Amino acid sequence: MRKGIFITIEGGEGAGKSTLIEQLSNIMLQRGVAVITTREPGGIPISEQIRGVILDRSHTAMDARTEALLYAAARRQHLVEKVAPALEQGLMVICDRFVDSSLAYQGHARGLGMDEVWSINQFAIQEFMPDLTIYMDISPDIGLKRIADASEREINRLDLEKHSFHEKVREGYLQLLQQNPDRMVLIDAEQRPEMVFNDVLEAIDSRFAGFYATDVKL
Amino acid sequence: MRKGIFITIEGGEGAGKSTLIEQLSNIMLQRGVAVITTREPGGIPISEQIRGVILDRSHTAMDARTEALLYAAARRQHLVEKVAPALEQGLMVICDRFVDSSLAYQGHARGLGMDEVWSINQFAIQEFMPDLTIYMDISPDIGLKRIADASEREINRLDLEKHSFHEKVREGYLQLLQQNPDRMVLIDAEQRPEMVFNDVLEAIDSRFAGFYATDVKL
Repeated sequence: MRKGIFITIEGGEGAGKSTLIEQLSNIMLQRGVAVITTREPGGIPISEQIRGVILDRSHTAMDARTEALLYAAARRQHLVEKVAPALEQGLMVICDRFVDSSLAYQGHARGLGMDEVWSINQFAIQEFMPDLTIYMDISPDIGLKRIADASEREINRLDLEKHSFHEKVREGYLQLLQQNPDRMVLIDAEQRPEMVFNDVLEAIDSRFAGFYATDVKL
Repeated sequence: MRKGIFITIEGGEGAGKSTLIEQLSNIMLQRGVAVITTREPGGIPISEQIRGVILDRSHTAMDARTEALLYAAARRQHLVEKVAPALEQGLMVICDRFVDSSLAYQGHARGLGMDEVWSINQFAIQEFMPDLTIYMDISPDIGLKRIADASEREINRLDLEKHSFHEKVREGYLQLLQQNPDRMVLIDAEQRPEMVFNDVLEAIDSRFAGFYATDVKL
C-alpha cells in the first residue's frame, strides 16, 4: 500500500521542466505538504556508477540496447533506494523524467520500439508506476529556440539535424498520452510560465486534494 | 542469416564445464573447425565495467532486479561485440554460460521469476538464441563435493547452507529443459569425464554434421 504520491514530469528539450519542478516544490512546502524532488541517478552511488558507464566517452561501441538496459538498472536502484522509501513514508515525490522518457526517447525516437523498452522497464519498476505524469508539450521549434536563447547562441546545424529526432520524441509522448489517459495529462508548455504553473497545479490538486486535506492549512 | 553455430554450456557448480569446453575446443581445432570459446564479460571493456559495478563489494544495497538488468546489459554488449561477429564470420562459438544461467539462478533460485528474467534477456539477445545448449546435470551433493575436493578443504557450513539454493538452480535448469526440448540437451555430468565428453560430442555432431562436412578431413 503506497502512502505517498508519485508524480513524474516529462517533456522534450526546453519545455521548462526544471522551473516547474522548483515552483511545485515551493508551493507544496508552503502548504505544509511533505515533498521531495529528485531525478535519476539522484545521488545513489550504484545508479551514479551505472550512469558513469553510460556517459563514458570512450564507450563509442555501446549498443542502444545495452544503454537501455543500463538506464533501466539505474532507474531500478534509484527507485528502490530513494523513491520507494519516500512514498512509504507518505511523502509526495516529484521526479524529473522517469519511464516515459525511455519510452519516448529510446523506444520511439531511437527506434528500439516502445513495447520492447516497456518490457525491461516494467521489470525495473514493477508496481511503482507514477500516480500522475505531467507531460509538458512544446513544439521542438519553440523548445530548441528557448534553449538557444538561454545559451545566447544561434541555432546551429546540429540543432537542425536533431529536429526530426525531437519531433519523434514528441510523437512518442503523444502516443503514450493516448495509451494512458488516466495516468498522463498534457500541459501546453508554450504558454506563459504562470499559465503553465496554474494548469499543472490544477491537474495535481484536482486529483490529490484528499491527500493534503489533512495537512493543508491555507 | 547466421553462418556459424552458437553453442552454450550450462550447469551448476562442479559440473565440469571448464574442462569440457577446453576438450571441445581442442577437438574442433583438430578437425579444422573454426571455433572460439568465450564467457561473459569476455574482455569487452563495456561489459567488464558493468561486471565491475555488479561485483563492487561496497554495493551492498544492490537490488536483485538491478543486478539482473546489469547482467543482461553486459550480456548484450558481449553478444554484439564478440559473439555475433564471430557467428557472422561462420565460426563455431562455444560460450560458458548464457541466458539460461540468468533464468535458473536469478529467475528461479533467487525467486525473481523465470518469465520476468526472460523478458529482459529477450530484449538483450533478440534473435541470438543458442543453436544448442548443453546442460551438464549433476546433483549438488556431488558437484559441491567435487569443488571441495579440488580446493582440498572440507565442505563447510556455508556450502551446506547453500545446498537448497543449488537444488533450486538444478530445478530451474530442468524446467528450462522441459520448455526447450529442441534447443537444450541434458548430459549426465556425474559420469566419468570421457563418457561426458563422448555424450556431448555426439549431441553436437548429430546436429551439426552438415556444418563441418565441408571443412572436416578426419
